[in-house]
Formats: sequence, C-alpha cells, structure tokens
Amino acid sequence: MRYELYYWPSIQGRGEFIRLALEDAGAEYVDVARGKNGAERMLAAMRRHRMFAPPFLKDGRLVIAQTANILFYLAPRLGLAPKGEAERLRLHQQQLTIADLLDEVHDTHHPIANSLYYEDQKEEAKRRTALFIEQRIPKFLGYFERTLPLRYSYVDLSLFQVVEGLRYAFPKAMKKAEQKTPRLLLLRDRIAKRPRLAAYLASPRRLPFNQQGMFRHYPELDG
Amino acid sequence: MRYELYYWPSIQGRGEFIRLALEDAGAEYVDVARGKNGAERMLAAMRRHRMFAPPFLKDGRLVIAQTANILFYLAPRLGLAPKGEAERLRLHQQQLTIADLLDEVHDTHHPIANSLYYEDQKEEAKRRTALFIEQRIPKFLGYFERTLPLRYSYVDLSLFQVVEGLRYAFPKAMKKAEQKTPRLLLLRDRIAKRPRLAAYLASPRRLPFNQQGMFRHYPELDG
Repeated sequence: MRYELYYWPSIQGRGEFIRLALEDAGAEYVDVARGKNGAERMLAAMRRHRMFAPPFLKDGRLVIAQTANILFYLAPRLGLAPKGEAERLRLHQQQLTIADLLDEVHDTHHPIANSLYYEDQKEEAKRRTALFIEQRIPKFLGYFERTLPLRYSYVDLSLFQVVEGLRYAFPKAMKKAEQKTPRLLLLRDRIAKRPRLAAYLASPRRLPFNQQGMFRHYPELDG
Repeated sequence: MRYELYYWPSIQGRGEFIRLALEDAGAEYVDVARGKNGAERMLAAMRRHRMFAPPFLKDGRLVIAQTANILFYLAPRLGLAPKGEAERLRLHQQQLTIADLLDEVHDTHHPIANSLYYEDQKEEAKRRTALFIEQRIPKFLGYFERTLPLRYSYVDLSLFQVVEGLRYAFPKAMKKAEQKTPRLLLLRDRIAKRPRLAAYLASPRRLPFNQQGMFRHYPELDG
C-alpha cells in the first residue's frame, strides 16, 4: 500500500519534513494535493477526516495529522529510527523542539496574525525578527549542535531542512550563526549527499523555497 | 519507582498538563522544583541531561522532555490511554493541536519576544489578541467540540485545563465563545468532578493561575 501525503501543493512548509523522510527512504507515496484537482481533493479529505490542518497522512485505514506525529509513526517503518521506545521518544523530543523553532520562524513574518498580510504587520515583524536572530537562532542551533544524535535518523533530515530554510530566509544572520555550529553543518553536508535525497533535491518534486512558505526571505528582516 | 517531574515551581504553565494526568491517575510523583532548593535542582538536572526547557520527566533511567511527548509516554502506564498504536497516535495528534493553541495563547501577551516585558509589547499584544479572540479561539474550540473523543483519556484532562485557562485569561471573550461549545463544557464539568482531580484542585498542590504563566489576565486584552 502506498502512503498518501496531504499537504499544500505549492510550498515546502511543514509537509517538507515528511517528504524528506519518504524520499530518503525510497518509500512509495503519493503527494495527493500535487496531482489533478489536488487541492480540492485535499480539502475534501480534510473535511471527511475532520482534520485541523495539513499535513496529514493516510496509510490504509489510518489517517493521522501533526508533522511530528506522522514522522514518529513513519520513521521505524521507513528504517529512519530504531524501534525501541526510549530512543523513539528521545528522537520525538528533538522533532518537537524543531517544531517549536518552526512556529517561531513562521511568526517572524507573521507576529500578529496569519490572517493578515505581511505588509500589514511589517513593523512588528522587524521587531520580532531582530530578537529572533539575536536570541533564538543561537539558542536553538546551539542546542541542536550539543545534542546531535549519534545514529542516523529522520531527525537529521529535519535538521538539514532547518539549516536550508534558515539560510534561505536569513542568509546574513546565518553566516554569523553558523560559525558556532560546525557539527550541525557537517551533518547538513553529509545529508545533502545521500543518494536518494540528492536525487530528490535535484528533481522537480522538490519545490523551491518561496514567499508563501514558512521560511521567507525579506531582506529588511535579515539583520 | 516514583516519577520525577521537573517544572517551574510557581506557575501552572505547560507542566500543569502533566500534573493533571499524574494526579487524576493517583500516581506517585515528586514535583522536584517545588521541594527544598527545588529550582536549583531543576536547573542542574536540566544541564546534566542537556534539556532545551522544562517540563521534563524522569522515570528511572529514562529522562524525556516536551509536554506532549511526556504525556504520550505516561498515558498508557497511568490508565489514561489505550495501548493500541492507532488510538495513541490519534490522541497524540489532539494533544499536539492543544500544544499549538497554547503557543498562540502565550504569544497573545508576548507577540514580540519572551525576553521582553509585557509592558514593552503591549500595543502589539492588543492587536494580536483581538484577532486571537475573533478568529483563533472559535477555530480551536470548534475543532475540539467536533472531535471530542468518545473514550476518557488524558486529552480530556488537557481540554479541561484549556477551558479553565481561557476562562481565566479571557473571561469576556470566553462567555461568548462558550455558547458554541456545549459538549466541551459538559466534558469540562464532568472532569472537574472526578474525585482525585477534584481533591487535587482543592489542594495547595494546585497553583493558582497568575500573571507569570501562559494564561494571563490583562483586562485590556479581553475584547
């Protein structure tokens, strides 16, 4: 049975963390919303299964949402996590900390409300992002640098995506922050060379970063 | 072996969701930071185990962080969730959606940065909270109303706490929002009468809501 991933068809967003795991494992999956009438099919499935928001995953009769929850389920099946409970919980803890960082990344450009345009919260965004760059990027990346797992897992793929996203959104700030995270960068480079992942990144399946996603590049916010 | 919970000693905050589960189950646990030299002991354990932030839980040799992760681990052991994978994932999905709501609640009074005083982001807080009350409370509570689980679980305890917290922080706004969530309120009332939970809520172990926690009452923000 193929996995069915339901996520917005035009952004990397949170769905990308699941795409990376499926692609690196060479799993058979359908990115439903990117097919014909995809967005409509996704929204219909969302209503049918009473989901709060994409992404969600269908595996036979199981339908689950929340990025970290989906990865927790998939990882041992894809060979991207050990099967032991303690190790799985520890990886999940890291993935949930990544999720916390992603919420903060989103709020750099939308500090007031997701329902307003960036232009209508630009001043607040500048104030929030300055402190995000000064305090939060070093705190999160420093934490990941100190706690990099020894064994390869799906969390490594997510950390790769975090580095890529932050580089896209805040190239100036990241140039500085990266000086303190050599191990994280080595990990990023190792991940980028994994054959199936490299093939995915070079394919049209990998959407480019853009100004609708979670990671956005507004030069005026980048320090 | 007693569970050891590590969380800030003077607020309900995220730790309260774990306290409610332990108390309702009648589990033996120590709320470490509320004992002698508690805050110091918590910070020392945090460094030793390289934790990003409280809460974290120690169960013998296992030490894990992230509220929803801790509840996922504890719940089947405390009789607060079934042991089947599909049901556990479904409950975890709900708990992670509650965690998303809590992040938004926190940011109503701290839309710019956690490191700044409320007074230094009050204007932004007013703008953010107005939209939170108008758009987000109905969206989240409406979702929980439609997807209330049929079987009792730890998620019910967390939904109880969500209602209590929102009532404390936004009494005026909640009076209006509650008109559309009768099932959620019935659940809240049923939970409040559970004998062990009622005893806990009436005890000094239940910290009062206050202006340092996640749920804060600033009249100027409440609609």
